[in-house]
Amino acid sequence: MRYHKIPDETVRRLPVYLRGLMVSANQGNRYISSLSLADSVGVDSWQIRKDFSYFGDFGTRGVGYDIERLARESKKILRLDVIRRAVLVGVGDLGSALLAYPGFDVYGLDIVAAFDIDPHKIGRTANGVTIEDFARIDTVTEREINLAIVAVPRTAAQLAVVKLVAAGIKGVLNFAPCKVSVPKRVKVITLDIAMELARLPYYIPRSSRVEEG
Amino acid sequence: MRYHKIPDETVRRLPVYLRGLMVSANQGNRYISSLSLADSVGVDSWQIRKDFSYFGDFGTRGVGYDIERLARESKKILRLDVIRRAVLVGVGDLGSALLAYPGFDVYGLDIVAAFDIDPHKIGRTANGVTIEDFARIDTVTEREINLAIVAVPRTAAQLAVVKLVAAGIKGVLNFAPCKVSVPKRVKVITLDIAMELARLPYYIPRSSRVEEG
Repeated sequence: MRYHKIPDETVRRLPVYLRGLMVSANQGNRYISSLSLADSVGVDSWQIRKDFSYFGDFGTRGVGYDIERLARESKKILRLDVIRRAVLVGVGDLGSALLAYPGFDVYGLDIVAAFDIDPHKIGRTANGVTIEDFARIDTVTEREINLAIVAVPRTAAQLAVVKLVAAGIKGVLNFAPCKVSVPKRVKVITLDIAMELARLPYYIPRSSRVEEG
Repeated sequence: MRYHKIPDETVRRLPVYLRGLMVSANQGNRYISSLSLADSVGVDSWQIRKDFSYFGDFGTRGVGYDIERLARESKKILRLDVIRRAVLVGVGDLGSALLAYPGFDVYGLDIVAAFDIDPHKIGRTANGVTIEDFARIDTVTEREINLAIVAVPRTAAQLAVVKLVAAGIKGVLNFAPCKVSVPKRVKVITLDIAMELARLPYYIPRSSRVEEG
């Protein structure tokens, strides 16, 4: 099955829905209405129905969505129906935190390798992963890894990504707050943490706002 | 000026546009078309026009948006037109990385305090911020801090947030991959890093996909 012209925004929301579905399944539910799902994930119910409608007709009026089926289909759409092996590049504070971060396995994601350029780090083990020399990043191809998490300083991000692409990486989650250039066949998602924090003040009423200057 | 019923999704995209506008301004541009902005931020141009239309009429046909004016208005809408002081809770690997993270200042965000419960960390200084005892979190009110970043283990997140809310925090950026409950007047954004990584496989063609099992 191929899905064309699905908006990026829909793809962004699917893992959110998937998490909501898994939470509901864990609570012992078999069906969920778009309204309940909307409530648990914080997206409008019409948006949920519209997003899923790109992929077929999953709901039954009056009954709701079959949770197991919708979760399975969502995983298939997101290509998370197999274990996805990822490599971490940059084992500083952020990288170490990512190696220890719980929750990757929920999506079938597995960080199986970590690379750094620092000789003091190479050879050490963090969360069960031995840190390797970034000079040997080309070995990821034969290890069936095609996702990378980049947690290097901003100035090193572009070069790291160039080498990852050369090593056959197809998707990059970049934590450096800068744009990195890649060939069209490679997908980069830049996660700018400051931008996430920047969304909060909007929701803080003027009355309780701290004025300065 | 008050803006009602603006979709969360629009609020989520505004900081993205704002960053795009600032990048373009730094390149010496005075005007930008919705198409150019779309190109630089990776959102459809119709979506950009629709999002900005909630707040008024900022563009001129054939000329585009006045970058400085639109950036200023976007900051005002997002309530980023004053410096926003934030507190970090949890100075582990992730917390340390956040203290060192560049890019907060672009949005006028400033992490001015950090708290932990670990006696070995309390009193130490990281990136110019002295780590304080979380037992004294109530002091943030008098220090005009109303944003918090929570980087504690999943099991500690809910209790940390309860104490933050009691201390007068109005907005929380939560890195623990779990839902935390807060009163309606408080806004929580949970940043689930695994979920961001989970978006990547969708963009990786089947032909280059690594199959397992």
